[in-house]
Amino acid sequence: MTDAPLQRMRITIEYDGSGLVGWQRQDNGPSVQQYLEEAALRLTGRATLVQGSGRTDAGVHATGQVAHLDVPAHLDSKAVMMGLNSWLETPAISVCHAAPVAADFHARFDAIERRYLYRIYCHPARPALDRGRVWHIRKPLDVKAMREAANYLVGRHDFTSFRATACQAESPVRTLDRLDVISENGEIHIRAVARSFLHHQIRNITGSLAEVGLGKQKPRWMKTVLEARDRTKAGQTAPASGLYLSDICYPGDARD
Amino acid sequence: MTDAPLQRMRITIEYDGSGLVGWQRQDNGPSVQQYLEEAALRLTGRATLVQGSGRTDAGVHATGQVAHLDVPAHLDSKAVMMGLNSWLETPAISVCHAAPVAADFHARFDAIERRYLYRIYCHPARPALDRGRVWHIRKPLDVKAMREAANYLVGRHDFTSFRATACQAESPVRTLDRLDVISENGEIHIRAVARSFLHHQIRNITGSLAEVGLGKQKPRWMKTVLEARDRTKAGQTAPASGLYLSDICYPGDARD
Repeated sequence: MTDAPLQRMRITIEYDGSGLVGWQRQDNGPSVQQYLEEAALRLTGRATLVQGSGRTDAGVHATGQVAHLDVPAHLDSKAVMMGLNSWLETPAISVCHAAPVAADFHARFDAIERRYLYRIYCHPARPALDRGRVWHIRKPLDVKAMREAANYLVGRHDFTSFRATACQAESPVRTLDRLDVISENGEIHIRAVARSFLHHQIRNITGSLAEVGLGKQKPRWMKTVLEARDRTKAGQTAPASGLYLSDICYPGDARD
Repeated sequence: MTDAPLQRMRITIEYDGSGLVGWQRQDNGPSVQQYLEEAALRLTGRATLVQGSGRTDAGVHATGQVAHLDVPAHLDSKAVMMGLNSWLETPAISVCHAAPVAADFHARFDAIERRYLYRIYCHPARPALDRGRVWHIRKPLDVKAMREAANYLVGRHDFTSFRATACQAESPVRTLDRLDVISENGEIHIRAVARSFLHHQIRNITGSLAEVGLGKQKPRWMKTVLEARDRTKAGQTAPASGLYLSDICYPGDARD
């Protein structure tokens, strides 16, 4: 191997998390990172680290995960996108965008905003086309009550009550910039925006919002749960299948 | 078996056609009809015909296929919907609605309107989450030109040019009530409405519209193809994966 000059690339990745162990390389099954690093090795001929903006859990999907990797400088954006896709050994992952970035760009440390979508399908019958892509709840949910409950969580708080016990973050304090609950095409969509999230934070919040939507709890209960700083006070962890990492923002990105 | 009184039920069915040979029972693999009839047998204890509004080809999806079947009268709508779903031996099919109808209701012969959606995903990279659910075209399509071409087909015409050679309909004349081409969420959606369609009619029309969208043909070419009454003059048959049977209308149904 010659030491060809390298170019850092930012790539955007879509994946169906159903059959995957999540973003991060693990011993118990195929991960998005492993598939991408194997494709990058085939494309570039070099062992290549593909650094993501953050982990996603097993079964969680992405429409806009972002990662960076270093490739030989003769490969342009199109060659990287098309090349990785042609070497990827699964149709469940696709690189949908690639662009050259500065050599010190870091997909994880430079991210200033992360956006997630959680889809709940409310219908007496299970979904066929969207199986594994939504959380199916058989009863109707009260969207207005969920919205009221969600408002208690927006802002800077100690989110201990909504944090996985395995969460490794140093502090349980996070600033939730948005937590919108909307009714769309017969589904309920929860959109969460923050600089960063705790482990299981959105799924735990969603599980609690569902309690409110089902009328098992009043909206104000959410405030009590938040202030308790006690994971056992909140609702169940909503399933991974409904969660989508939809967007990662970096300084200079256009934002809507 | 006692001869219990029967009640005719109209059911609405959603399915992911990817691994199925289509609606109709066939020898070469699992069909939607076969799965439903086996579930109905388990639910009712009787051999039961499930009569659909019409066939769909292998790989074609449905969000609103309609069928009728006769069930013991003690089973209400909810019991039929939930019972069929619990006996269905695949997660790719779901009965999403059931309602009692008159004993002479016929899902096929009483249908007065059929609606289909065709989804084209235009992007240089392949889709991950929607693989098998769209037609992936790597180049951008000119929606305005496609819309202009589509307008030549609306109305009552001899659709020989867009009919499968294997089509068994007596007449090639059909009335296409609507053929809308719209750009939606980064996809192109073609919506077709008619009392009935010829075999492969929408997929053959879509293949020809794509020729126009790609700039290989002018919109007016569609009129020439239609008037030629010759299948060899039209474009390719678009893949089954992008096609959805979305709605079947009967007299008395509310329509938008």
